[in-house]
Amino acid sequence: MLKTIEWTGAAVRLLDQTRLPHETVYLDITDQRQMHDAIRRLVVRGAPAIGVAAAFGAYLGVKEHVDDSPPRFFERLNSVCDCLATSRPTAVNLFWALDRVQRVAREVAGDRVTASPTCQVVRDVLDAILNECQVMMEEESRSGRAIGEHGLKLLRELRACRHQAAKRDSTELKASDAAERFEILTHCNAGALSTAAYGNALSPIYFGAEQGEQFHVFADETRPLLQGSRITAYELRANNVPVTVICDNMAPVVLAKNRIDAVIVGADRIAANGDTANKIGTLGLAIAARHFNVPFLVAAPTSTIDPKTASGAEIPIEQRGADEVTSFGQRPTAPKDVDVYNPAFDVTPAELITAIITERGIAKPPTRESLAALLSHRSA
Amino acid sequence: MLKTIEWTGAAVRLLDQTRLPHETVYLDITDQRQMHDAIRRLVVRGAPAIGVAAAFGAYLGVKEHVDDSPPRFFERLNSVCDCLATSRPTAVNLFWALDRVQRVAREVAGDRVTASPTCQVVRDVLDAILNECQVMMEEESRSGRAIGEHGLKLLRELRACRHQAAKRDSTELKASDAAERFEILTHCNAGALSTAAYGNALSPIYFGAEQGEQFHVFADETRPLLQGSRITAYELRANNVPVTVICDNMAPVVLAKNRIDAVIVGADRIAANGDTANKIGTLGLAIAARHFNVPFLVAAPTSTIDPKTASGAEIPIEQRGADEVTSFGQRPTAPKDVDVYNPAFDVTPAELITAIITERGIAKPPTRESLAALLSHRSA
Repeated sequence: MLKTIEWTGAAVRLLDQTRLPHETVYLDITDQRQMHDAIRRLVVRGAPAIGVAAAFGAYLGVKEHVDDSPPRFFERLNSVCDCLATSRPTAVNLFWALDRVQRVAREVAGDRVTASPTCQVVRDVLDAILNECQVMMEEESRSGRAIGEHGLKLLRELRACRHQAAKRDSTELKASDAAERFEILTHCNAGALSTAAYGNALSPIYFGAEQGEQFHVFADETRPLLQGSRITAYELRANNVPVTVICDNMAPVVLAKNRIDAVIVGADRIAANGDTANKIGTLGLAIAARHFNVPFLVAAPTSTIDPKTASGAEIPIEQRGADEVTSFGQRPTAPKDVDVYNPAFDVTPAELITAIITERGIAKPPTRESLAALLSHRSA
Repeated sequence: MLKTIEWTGAAVRLLDQTRLPHETVYLDITDQRQMHDAIRRLVVRGAPAIGVAAAFGAYLGVKEHVDDSPPRFFERLNSVCDCLATSRPTAVNLFWALDRVQRVAREVAGDRVTASPTCQVVRDVLDAILNECQVMMEEESRSGRAIGEHGLKLLRELRACRHQAAKRDSTELKASDAAERFEILTHCNAGALSTAAYGNALSPIYFGAEQGEQFHVFADETRPLLQGSRITAYELRANNVPVTVICDNMAPVVLAKNRIDAVIVGADRIAANGDTANKIGTLGLAIAARHFNVPFLVAAPTSTIDPKTASGAEIPIEQRGADEVTSFGQRPTAPKDVDVYNPAFDVTPAELITAIITERGIAKPPTRESLAALLSHRSA
């Protein structure tokens, strides 16, 4: 499996996801401006991976400033973080990771911040920042695996419920039914390539496959940038999980005709009340899943939950350029200069979400209370 | 405005819609094999236009057979029609138009079918077929205009209802509200380029613009073949109607945030109970429209209603090739040989459709009875 993000000791090595699946190109990022550009252009994408990348970007932005006085160094760190925070507006992990870098830096400096210039303070802070970046990367990896465990448990429970309902309704249960493969529908890419390692929405699948479960996944292609057909299909095949690519507008037919166990998607920001911003198209999928009575699951680390955002109405939605919609590669696909509306995300209200799966456990249904309980667990 | 289909006196001139909006290329079709290919490749598309094109294809297939004996001529006509009927499976107008050609031919021949060879019978039949093709083309044009009239009336009624509801709920009505522009969302292309002339889903807009009404249209791009961004956006701009292109998966956000007066789409086949096959993506749009309480309208000539198809479950759905989904122009957009599911149409159940607008009037709500009433009106 390809690595999304890696620290080489001198640079942050990013897999250029804009060129998947046909070209495997790595970019060595050596300063914060390059990192800003890489995040903005979606070289690195997926809320958890963006968080880790931004944290490393902050480190790259200050690592040559070892000779600065502590106040000057902190001024620099803050301005680097402020700048990186402008790269994309919706994924809260970006701000969460930058806050965490700044907090660690302050903690390590302690009351030495205002001390007279001494390289040792700044050196300690730099070491602590780099260490924190690596800790975050490892945490994401562990989170992904934990989400996989919790998610698989939930999928098995949902299957058991369905079997019980079938029995109660005296529907004949086929002998093969208990051991049947799970049918999953997903949107965009919340897989291994959207995180520093294991993935979120796809993690229950990878974890389940390790446990001997069978899966088949319908992957929405995910217009306009085709993260589903380019990236999700690619990584599932690389991991020997059968996948069928569909256009986004075919999902309702799949939900109507195929026995889909669950829709599983990732998240870019989860408000305190459970409203969830995710890749554009998620809202329509959630509405269709509700219409056809299919469980709709969100899988994301608790770092994606933002207690400071009360509800989905407060989540800023990134608007992207018209050319993503009106051309393909270099080829125009719409009249020249036509008006385009291109929001990169939408907000799915909590009431359409069956459960939110985190590394700390499951909020089912997601409510202000169930999410707060998971968050207090995190800080505990 | 470009003409979709024209009879030159020697050939059927088709606008090659696969090359819009950047190239305006006409193909002169001179035999039934070329017509089969043009329909299959979507050079000509949209249920009404396919019907007229197939009828002309039947004429092209027999017009050189003026010296055949009548029995032999009819054998030839039937086999040409059988072959053209295989070009696409879902649009019922195709079969309807071919049936109509065969019926007219039989009526003109009358009891001369079994008479001894005489060119005059076959000449009369050929003249009648060509005439019927031209009559169908003119009918489609008149139908489109009548759909426009009925559709505009319905849009005004829906607006009036909304205003009354706003008054009843004591919602403040802005002074500008009565004269505000209509906001319409459409999918695929059921405009002038899908018919021999005026269009179906877009006809109320063109007719309303003539009456001084203002419109703004959100056009779903319509994956995989982008009839919305390529063709609908093109023809609306050519007719000075403001249009905004969106990806299909953005429609739920538009329905949630913008005050959309109605979703209007065309149809490829309407079953006797009102279930409607239309371009893939229509079902999801209808579910989202219901979720956000936006009227969902189908506009189609009565030739699209098939009394022999009891319900949507009986409508055959065309499955198309994987390459439409996995590549763009010549550029691959998914892993090589990935599995793809690519249904060209879906079926929207009648209960999600607010009204079906035909040239004969409106079925609101569409039911077996309201549709049968429109059909008996047609044959009366």
